[in-house]
Amino acid sequence: MKTLIKNVYAVMPDGSVPKTNILIDQDRIVGIGPVSDDFHPDKIIDGTDHLAIPGFVNAHTHTSMTLLRSYADDMALMDWLNQMVWPAEAKMTAEDIYWGAMLAMLEMVRTGTTTFADMYGPWMEKVAEAAIDAGLRGVLSRGIIGAAPDGEKKIEENVTLFQEFHGAADGRITVMFGPHAPYTCPPDFLKKVAKTAQSLNAEIHIHMHETKTEIQDSLQQYGKRPFEWVAETGLFDGKGTLAAHCVHLNDADIAIMKKYGIRAAHNPGSNMKLASGVAPVPRLLQEGVCVALGTDGASSNNNLDMLEEVNLAAMLHKVHTYDPVAVPAFCALQMGTEYGGKAVGVKDIGRLEQGYKADITLFDLNSAAWCPRNNLVSLLVYSANSSSVDTVLCNGKVLMENHVLKTLDEERILFEAQRCANHLTK
Amino acid sequence: MKTLIKNVYAVMPDGSVPKTNILIDQDRIVGIGPVSDDFHPDKIIDGTDHLAIPGFVNAHTHTSMTLLRSYADDMALMDWLNQMVWPAEAKMTAEDIYWGAMLAMLEMVRTGTTTFADMYGPWMEKVAEAAIDAGLRGVLSRGIIGAAPDGEKKIEENVTLFQEFHGAADGRITVMFGPHAPYTCPPDFLKKVAKTAQSLNAEIHIHMHETKTEIQDSLQQYGKRPFEWVAETGLFDGKGTLAAHCVHLNDADIAIMKKYGIRAAHNPGSNMKLASGVAPVPRLLQEGVCVALGTDGASSNNNLDMLEEVNLAAMLHKVHTYDPVAVPAFCALQMGTEYGGKAVGVKDIGRLEQGYKADITLFDLNSAAWCPRNNLVSLLVYSANSSSVDTVLCNGKVLMENHVLKTLDEERILFEAQRCANHLTK
Ligand SMILES: [Zn+2]
Ligand SMILES: [Zn+2]
Repeated sequence: MKTLIKNVYAVMPDGSVPKTNILIDQDRIVGIGPVSDDFHPDKIIDGTDHLAIPGFVNAHTHTSMTLLRSYADDMALMDWLNQMVWPAEAKMTAEDIYWGAMLAMLEMVRTGTTTFADMYGPWMEKVAEAAIDAGLRGVLSRGIIGAAPDGEKKIEENVTLFQEFHGAADGRITVMFGPHAPYTCPPDFLKKVAKTAQSLNAEIHIHMHETKTEIQDSLQQYGKRPFEWVAETGLFDGKGTLAAHCVHLNDADIAIMKKYGIRAAHNPGSNMKLASGVAPVPRLLQEGVCVALGTDGASSNNNLDMLEEVNLAAMLHKVHTYDPVAVPAFCALQMGTEYGGKAVGVKDIGRLEQGYKADITLFDLNSAAWCPRNNLVSLLVYSANSSSVDTVLCNGKVLMENHVLKTLDEERILFEAQRCANHLTK
Repeated sequence: MKTLIKNVYAVMPDGSVPKTNILIDQDRIVGIGPVSDDFHPDKIIDGTDHLAIPGFVNAHTHTSMTLLRSYADDMALMDWLNQMVWPAEAKMTAEDIYWGAMLAMLEMVRTGTTTFADMYGPWMEKVAEAAIDAGLRGVLSRGIIGAAPDGEKKIEENVTLFQEFHGAADGRITVMFGPHAPYTCPPDFLKKVAKTAQSLNAEIHIHMHETKTEIQDSLQQYGKRPFEWVAETGLFDGKGTLAAHCVHLNDADIAIMKKYGIRAAHNPGSNMKLASGVAPVPRLLQEGVCVALGTDGASSNNNLDMLEEVNLAAMLHKVHTYDPVAVPAFCALQMGTEYGGKAVGVKDIGRLEQGYKADITLFDLNSAAWCPRNNLVSLLVYSANSSSVDTVLCNGKVLMENHVLKTLDEERILFEAQRCANHLTK
């Protein structure tokens, strides 16, 4: 199966935006430029008046939390968790996990995300099923709270998830281990997680340094900041680590991140809404740390719209550092695409380049937000919103074309998700 | 002409969201609730699965700057002005002003804004013409730079604008005086503006305390902060003042704002992108200052999407103050609607309430961002984007219905705006 996207403005890895053609064979981009005589496409997508970017990579989320969207907002963090989120989550069935994930898949396809890194559970196999059904790329981990009595069981569930799904669906599904956070997993428990993950050569997905309280509590309990003592458990010694948030960092923390090649998933929307703080993103980028972007769960964001995170990443750090050239538009876009691919450990995604996977999002430029067309990357990051996304390919397969969904039944998903939410929250 | 919006979720002034009916006669809401037997609508809009809010009020913008959208981003402020914005503005003709304003009208209708406060020029009569053509409500002022040699002429242009358009188009157009800022208008010049405006009983629209530099320069030049010496010129003694930005404020500044009943137009997007700083919005609200929201011009934002400003107002102050309950969703929405009406000095807009003007925006709830429907105000502010706006009424007239524009020719506007931008920027 060969696909040609012709006459499209394509955001290249160097930030240039030529009008060109994208040649796809099966799951890969096989060329960007003139169409060679021996390329006979089975399908042609007219890219006129469209902008192509690599599909967004949502490097940190909890997909099934879409069911709790808008259920509990404008509350203090612990009230939010104790009174609202945790009681509702305790009621979640396998069916809820599936339809919550399907609602997330719908939202991601509609807004141009082709890869997501998820940490949740139980029933993460239902999230795998949803990603497979939707045609998206999922990097899944079982969220493991070691402080709970069933911590060991959750490690086992993560092992099973890894064994059943790592590399599944033509490689679209990969699996990491998901110890939730240093404040929910004591050192001895993290050692077990580390040992298990490393025995499978699996990567780690963990929340790190999200709030000031987390640092203060760690200092009080262990006399050390979380990055320091977690490093001592050996958790970072394996194949790789994706650390969500990384808001409150000192020099030693950043040195640890660099030493172990830890990739950060920055969640500006969640950090703003939950009042967690502002991560030192310009500094991390300057120090060569890989910084990707994530939405976090829909109950703390409240959506999975990656273009909003790209926009916030470009805006928040300017005002926070009083530097109008901090995190320029193209840099923010790279965080949401190329750096996302690196952060979630999936090779060959996040660039429009020969040899890379054909994960591509097209924006329709025919609207006021894209006029006049002085600078398409600027328009994307600072002016447009995700409603301009009209066509999405993942792994070479068309998931949406001219706003028409190819793999998902929108009406059914909205109906089932509302039905599931009703029993969780009422 | 009687219009009925039936079976709609309506955001009431107290924040409740009943499913109800909105009864409109000519330009006004004549009832919200059951449809009385003697109300015979000429037109019925089915509000099923829709949310109704008062049309957004953009309390500070420069509409024709849409032509410079994405022309100059990620630059230091003075480079941006000197090298890019001012040279392009110097080339603007009356035709550019009109088509730039029409592009803004298009964008505002599409995103649910029904009232805007504009400061620009020359040829503000072209902006009036565009607002009249579009059917929107415009609060116009001639931007007056007193430091320039033609300052007096600009005051005269503002006088002419006032005489020709204040109260025009069934009251949809009102006119203020627009001294640009303390750093571009010396004290003696502001005294002249004050005297002229007061002789016409006209209000003032001015930029105040946008950047740290502005305060430092004022202290150096006058030994006083801008609010202090501008108050001494008598500028605030007239009918009322709309002050854009108000980012850097001390106790004395806030006391002056309260003394003169000065209304603030907070521009979170512009302040973030230009790295101006974070306005003390929670404190201003607590002290009873009227705080509205604005987009500022499209070259510093880069759009006129008020729902984004409402979202940013709710998000930015949480993270800035480390308070997750700062500026809750409904408060941010009030800033973008009811407080906006007060700030721009237009009576009877900004509330869905009997006797208020029928300026109404409807959102289609049939999409993932609105699912599940746990809290519609939360979903509006934290999850949805403006692409859900499908129907807009201003002054009782339908400007867009089911995404179909009734007063504007979208294709022509996009074409003409691009044509005008080409000659300004190339
Ligand atoms: Zn998270
Ligand atoms: Zn302005």
